[in-house]
Amino acid sequence: MTSKKTLKTKNSPQKSKHAPTKHENHAKKGVVVPKVNVVPNPKPAKRPQSLERLDRFFSPKIVAIIGASREEHKIGNVIVSNFVRSFRGKVIPINPHAKELYGIPAHASIKEVKELIDLAVICVPADQAIVALRECGQKKIPNVIMITSGFAEIGNEKRQKELNSILQTYSQMRVMGPNCLGVLDTKSGVDTVFLPADRLGRPREGAISFISQSGALGSALLDWDAAKGYGINKFISYGNATQLTESDYLQYLAWDHSTKIIMMYVEGVKNGKRFMEVLKETTARKPVVILKGGQTSAGENAVKSHTGAIAGSAEVFEAMVKQCGATFVTSMEELFDVARVLQTEPELKGNRVQIITNGGGYGILTADAFQKAGFTMATMEQSRVAEIAKVCPPYASLKNPLDLTGDADNARYQVALTQALADQNVDAIMLILLFQVPRLTETITDDVIAILKNRTKPVLVLSVGGQYSETKRQELESAGISTFQEPLAAERALKALMKKA
Amino acid sequence: MTSKKTLKTKNSPQKSKHAPTKHENHAKKGVVVPKVNVVPNPKPAKRPQSLERLDRFFSPKIVAIIGASREEHKIGNVIVSNFVRSFRGKVIPINPHAKELYGIPAHASIKEVKELIDLAVICVPADQAIVALRECGQKKIPNVIMITSGFAEIGNEKRQKELNSILQTYSQMRVMGPNCLGVLDTKSGVDTVFLPADRLGRPREGAISFISQSGALGSALLDWDAAKGYGINKFISYGNATQLTESDYLQYLAWDHSTKIIMMYVEGVKNGKRFMEVLKETTARKPVVILKGGQTSAGENAVKSHTGAIAGSAEVFEAMVKQCGATFVTSMEELFDVARVLQTEPELKGNRVQIITNGGGYGILTADAFQKAGFTMATMEQSRVAEIAKVCPPYASLKNPLDLTGDADNARYQVALTQALADQNVDAIMLILLFQVPRLTETITDDVIAILKNRTKPVLVLSVGGQYSETKRQELESAGISTFQEPLAAERALKALMKKA
Repeated sequence: MTSKKTLKTKNSPQKSKHAPTKHENHAKKGVVVPKVNVVPNPKPAKRPQSLERLDRFFSPKIVAIIGASREEHKIGNVIVSNFVRSFRGKVIPINPHAKELYGIPAHASIKEVKELIDLAVICVPADQAIVALRECGQKKIPNVIMITSGFAEIGNEKRQKELNSILQTYSQMRVMGPNCLGVLDTKSGVDTVFLPADRLGRPREGAISFISQSGALGSALLDWDAAKGYGINKFISYGNATQLTESDYLQYLAWDHSTKIIMMYVEGVKNGKRFMEVLKETTARKPVVILKGGQTSAGENAVKSHTGAIAGSAEVFEAMVKQCGATFVTSMEELFDVARVLQTEPELKGNRVQIITNGGGYGILTADAFQKAGFTMATMEQSRVAEIAKVCPPYASLKNPLDLTGDADNARYQVALTQALADQNVDAIMLILLFQVPRLTETITDDVIAILKNRTKPVLVLSVGGQYSETKRQELESAGISTFQEPLAAERALKALMKKA
Repeated sequence: MTSKKTLKTKNSPQKSKHAPTKHENHAKKGVVVPKVNVVPNPKPAKRPQSLERLDRFFSPKIVAIIGASREEHKIGNVIVSNFVRSFRGKVIPINPHAKELYGIPAHASIKEVKELIDLAVICVPADQAIVALRECGQKKIPNVIMITSGFAEIGNEKRQKELNSILQTYSQMRVMGPNCLGVLDTKSGVDTVFLPADRLGRPREGAISFISQSGALGSALLDWDAAKGYGINKFISYGNATQLTESDYLQYLAWDHSTKIIMMYVEGVKNGKRFMEVLKETTARKPVVILKGGQTSAGENAVKSHTGAIAGSAEVFEAMVKQCGATFVTSMEELFDVARVLQTEPELKGNRVQIITNGGGYGILTADAFQKAGFTMATMEQSRVAEIAKVCPPYASLKNPLDLTGDADNARYQVALTQALADQNVDAIMLILLFQVPRLTETITDDVIAILKNRTKPVLVLSVGGQYSETKRQELESAGISTFQEPLAAERALKALMKKA
């Protein structure tokens, strides 16, 4: 990493001589939060023009892969096969020793290519990468993803200097990386993630975009996302951030219509002041959820070894992030959980939760988790409870949790869910569905999806089980319903919706 | 539920007039923990003879299914098909209208059966169940699992009285239930869990047994366990506990050679004093991990509706459980996580953790989680670090986390793991394995399994990903290595090992 400037802005933390203001008290005890000049989230009228120059990272028409390879599992091979598999535009493999790759004509050098290249992906070794990047500049290629590593991050200052000089000479060219995985765009099919598809699954198209400072962590989470069926819109692994930084990508996604929610994994930021400004702008447009690596001295030391960034005081960072209107989370699962409910659920207008279940024990654990977290158990209107009673046996428990019992069929769920949705005493619904019981037919998911279509309050589904349950759970996810296994996880995610308002 | 006596023993909680003793301070603030006469965990010399009478619940030779049915998805059909699929002994279907079921000759009534029946499973409607139970008594069948519901739990006092009277008359007969799922024994193949196998997977044979007061929750967790590949030894869903209670089953498992660890989900206990005595006896023999439903007033109210039990003060229960040497957990995942590490890992002798990773970000998040939880980062001996350096490139970070980097191959892991295992400055190892990278070959799991075979310190594996990673993760689980996705979960589980000592 090059810059050592991380969140040390003019407003850097300092011992305050006066008593802490209400503002400062936002942070945890003992931490003085620097004041940020927050005009409460500014909404710029239109997209900054400079962002146009990042468009072709995500929706290029013609892409050249410099370092395209025939050798299986080599980076340049995986990337070409990715584009062949999923990209909707034209791919041009660049390889001095091959006439074609995957049936596509190859070129010895980009200098030979006659078409106007929108995006070049460089995955040759570092010294060749320098040469290739200069050629990209000469050819006026607007966007370059530099996968190649071997620069500042391994302490090679000489090579870094060369890189910097090229970036200065061809300052119009926008360069992602080096030392990164680049971009996965599930809509356009751009996919420079050089892990083979048989080892790393690709997520379905979704509305959540993900910026990750760590390539390995980010891509492993993509793989997990794919298996869980959550969906992703754009994934950005930006590596060393020599030219474009996390702030640039964040701003880009702020104005990206197909991105509804932004997730970030960061270890440190290049320019704290700019990051905060952009973050404020972004949260005025859409929710941002941030996981920070290096929250303890142990983690911070590791950050230094990993990306060379200075993590900065974790508490200060957390307080700043919150002040800018983003949600701060502390684990990978929470990152995805919070982002998902922010995507799928309407505003949470109060803290009265109704639990509906076909498993008594699960209902009890859920009641425990939600009460512990400060939610209260809703008391449904009598007339609505009476409607539910009509379809339930006498041994069903029509309280909260509303226990439809283990022999509940689709009809009981339909009535209970419909009534709870319409009940003015209920702010949110925890819908527990144990799919193992035979009286819930295959269509239970369709029934639930239909009822929840235009919901005006959050409904989170809880379920636990194996293969069959997993299939049903994914049906719900695909229809924009957030599912959870643990009540604790659902409760944390629901809490994040309080801040959405 | 019949008994309202729950943890209200002679030592019941009461406002203490004197200042709290050190003993009482074990509990959370404001809670006075009743003193238990703890002779520090007594070790009875041999298995109580009374337990022999429970053996045939788990390893019967001849089982009669009263209510065996031809109709698919009916309880009596699922249970017969379970036994046909997995039971190693003889099954006798009882059905007045069928000559055979699944090719097995059926009888109209157990009165007609000439063989000595070890275990009868009753799944006919409640009034017929009463008749059937009496016949079992007359026939001196030693063990009966009464699946049927419709007794005290739905307020049918008349029927409950009839049941009580039969139990009194035939007091030699041991009866599980009613209103339960009964037993799943992965070794003998006894399986009265009436959820069909295409909806609820059956776990592989393992060393952890699971007693669940909630049938639905318990069985859903079995299904999940099956999909995760964790394994189970015996599962017991005991329902109303009219005759045999949770304490009986706990004591049985305490002396069961194939059970190494016991998990319990309880909402309330029948006889608090006996439960504590048995729990103390049990923890002297093997670890017990307990999850309690009804820890808040919301949960407690739900418990009343669910099983009619009185949950009792959650804090008092927690303190008692801990005093008896068991581990108290607060979520379903934690229940399984803690049980798994207690099963697979050796004693934890200190709090110095070494992290080994091929993903920088994952290593950082792990360092954060462990330091936050009070663990310290180990500093490995210089000579051992030098050995690891020999197989690593210069850009690998040989600190803690030990970052073997994304291009790590099997050899780097072999050397790093071997050195860390032998290092006297390391008490536990967090081994992060991102399986997506091509340079880790298919055999990485075999390599890790071989090295960890006779480990003398805990090693937990962390991994996140999709299908391929899941396959590799399950290979490790099958070989007795505990795997996790979230550093937080691994940290909680490792902490539980501190108490093992």
